[in-house]
Amino acid sequence: MEKELLLMLPGPVPVPERVRLAMARQAINHRSPEFGEVYADCVRCLKPAFGTENDLVILSGSGTAGMEAAVANLGRGRKIACLANGKFGERLYDISCRYGEATKLASDWGTPLPLEGLAASLEAGAEVVTMVHNETSAGILNPAHEVGKLCRKHDALFVMDGVTSIGGDVVEADRWGVDIAIVGSQKCLAAPAGLAAVSVSERARERFCDSPPYYLDLAAYLRTAKKEPMETPYTPAVPLFLALREAGLLIEEEGIEHWAIRHQRLAQAVRAAAAAWGLPLFPETDGLHRYSNTVTAIRMPGGTTDSDLRGLVKRLGVVIAGGQDHLKGKIFRIGHMGAVNAPEILAALGAVQAAMHRLGCPGADDGVAAAAAHLA
Amino acid sequence: MEKELLLMLPGPVPVPERVRLAMARQAINHRSPEFGEVYADCVRCLKPAFGTENDLVILSGSGTAGMEAAVANLGRGRKIACLANGKFGERLYDISCRYGEATKLASDWGTPLPLEGLAASLEAGAEVVTMVHNETSAGILNPAHEVGKLCRKHDALFVMDGVTSIGGDVVEADRWGVDIAIVGSQKCLAAPAGLAAVSVSERARERFCDSPPYYLDLAAYLRTAKKEPMETPYTPAVPLFLALREAGLLIEEEGIEHWAIRHQRLAQAVRAAAAAWGLPLFPETDGLHRYSNTVTAIRMPGGTTDSDLRGLVKRLGVVIAGGQDHLKGKIFRIGHMGAVNAPEILAALGAVQAAMHRLGCPGADDGVAAAAAHLA
Repeated sequence: MEKELLLMLPGPVPVPERVRLAMARQAINHRSPEFGEVYADCVRCLKPAFGTENDLVILSGSGTAGMEAAVANLGRGRKIACLANGKFGERLYDISCRYGEATKLASDWGTPLPLEGLAASLEAGAEVVTMVHNETSAGILNPAHEVGKLCRKHDALFVMDGVTSIGGDVVEADRWGVDIAIVGSQKCLAAPAGLAAVSVSERARERFCDSPPYYLDLAAYLRTAKKEPMETPYTPAVPLFLALREAGLLIEEEGIEHWAIRHQRLAQAVRAAAAAWGLPLFPETDGLHRYSNTVTAIRMPGGTTDSDLRGLVKRLGVVIAGGQDHLKGKIFRIGHMGAVNAPEILAALGAVQAAMHRLGCPGADDGVAAAAAHLA
Repeated sequence: MEKELLLMLPGPVPVPERVRLAMARQAINHRSPEFGEVYADCVRCLKPAFGTENDLVILSGSGTAGMEAAVANLGRGRKIACLANGKFGERLYDISCRYGEATKLASDWGTPLPLEGLAASLEAGAEVVTMVHNETSAGILNPAHEVGKLCRKHDALFVMDGVTSIGGDVVEADRWGVDIAIVGSQKCLAAPAGLAAVSVSERARERFCDSPPYYLDLAAYLRTAKKEPMETPYTPAVPLFLALREAGLLIEEEGIEHWAIRHQRLAQAVRAAAAAWGLPLFPETDGLHRYSNTVTAIRMPGGTTDSDLRGLVKRLGVVIAGGQDHLKGKIFRIGHMGAVNAPEILAALGAVQAAMHRLGCPGADDGVAAAAAHLA
């Protein structure tokens, strides 16, 4: 039979059968009460994962479309401070440069963000701050609560990329003072790729800029979401909404706290395996910056290459991620997002461990056993 | 059992089971040879429907996203002449206003475009021309070949919205001098909603503007499509690509000429029914402007309302479209797009005819029989 690979990536993730089958039904009209209900169900199920009571809309596009919508609607012509300690923080800066007067507040990938620099930027009049909450390129979780507090102190708008944290970790957008938060469907929500959900505070809406891209005009999405039945301004990707609704119902059934805490438990197991293997985790953490609970970035074992390691892992049917850009060959990354659980973690760690043995990596203790002890 | 409605709309359209089931499979990595093949298959199957040998890329977004990509990459800061004889022509003007110095060259919905006005605009220096090929809001097919000739004569770029013509009518983008053509997945291609395919001429690429929206940056799509394996710049809506590939294979199997000609035959049958009912078609045609082959816009029978007529039709399990904006209550529209054939047409016409009888519309002859004679 055709080999189905186990995707242990920081997205896309394995999609539960129930979610996939939701897409197989016949098309429905997107201007109908039936679609309105699907959209409303998605929103109801997602809000707890965001920790928000703000309005929430769904764009038919990737997480990047959601991020651009945030920046385009809040940042045009404004001073934007872009925190960056990884690939997606840098992408937010690149996007911000197309709209406003953007300043990059960067630290090395996977190291703590320059929060003093942010305070200075805010003193100097930054009106919008962008931050990636969970930076998958480096496996680090950034301090949203701290950044939110700084933004509120200076009355700046806070855009948080929650693409790979929302659903996979505790997120409290409202309590943290997040004005726009974004999640991608194909990450911790265990749905297929192609949708971005965006929450928008009242404060953000009051400060919307003129003339965002037509397709990313959040005011239009907010307006049509208030219609009865609920709508999107342009044709939505209906099958993906059907799938997201089903994934949302799965989360609702497990309960968002359990769903998120499961991610923490899986992350601890993977970290325990790395420790047993004698491989350091990549990020530098401190009291504010923590290891990601949705992807673990591990330093590559000595004497082997990225393609050797990941190639052998793939021959065992498991796909893990390498490093991106300048981290290529220096780290590998195991995603633990969405609906996965102990079996998938054990399969992934077993494959990595077997590959390391095969490649003769020295001194590796039994990581699978260490992880299993955590998972039991 | 749950009632499945027959969608005889100008999109979304019924999606063949084989296409829907393609989405039910497990997620695949979008940076993999497997996804690259899916993307390449989509492109191969779509090019003949466009009548193009130009590069073709696929955006995860609606047809509107594709239209905005065209305007944003060609129109920023330029003089844009926007032909409009319906809702989507006006939308193209609205989008163009966000990027360039746009002029609307409008005629009443469903009436011939002001081609003399276009010639004058081009004389006056218009650099980009936008036109909707098949205007579904009014059921009219606009003269792409003529407009293309005018554009070439004045060295202007020609953006053609082929969202509801490509796949459903003869389209010869290259021969007509179209620089960017766009199709939506949920129309004549019989795939689900959520993707826009965009063909780009060499000439268009040489004149790309700076700083389009990040998500709609066609240069990035063209660049990543040249990679091996073929890629999109941001995470694609993978299930929709799988479905579009399957729909493309269906078209390839039927042959694009047959696929398009089937639409013509169905359109003729629907027009014959309208004639038998004594109901005029809405558009005003001339030697250049023709009736749409993918949607038929028919004047509402006297003495009835839109909600009565379409309500009764829906009670028979068929969904047809009303008029949009100022045409609400004045016309109704029957879509005949995608994989539908004689049975769906007979079902739709039978439902409309029964509703008209029920509502006591006067003097209606047997439209179903008239259509059947064409379909036989």
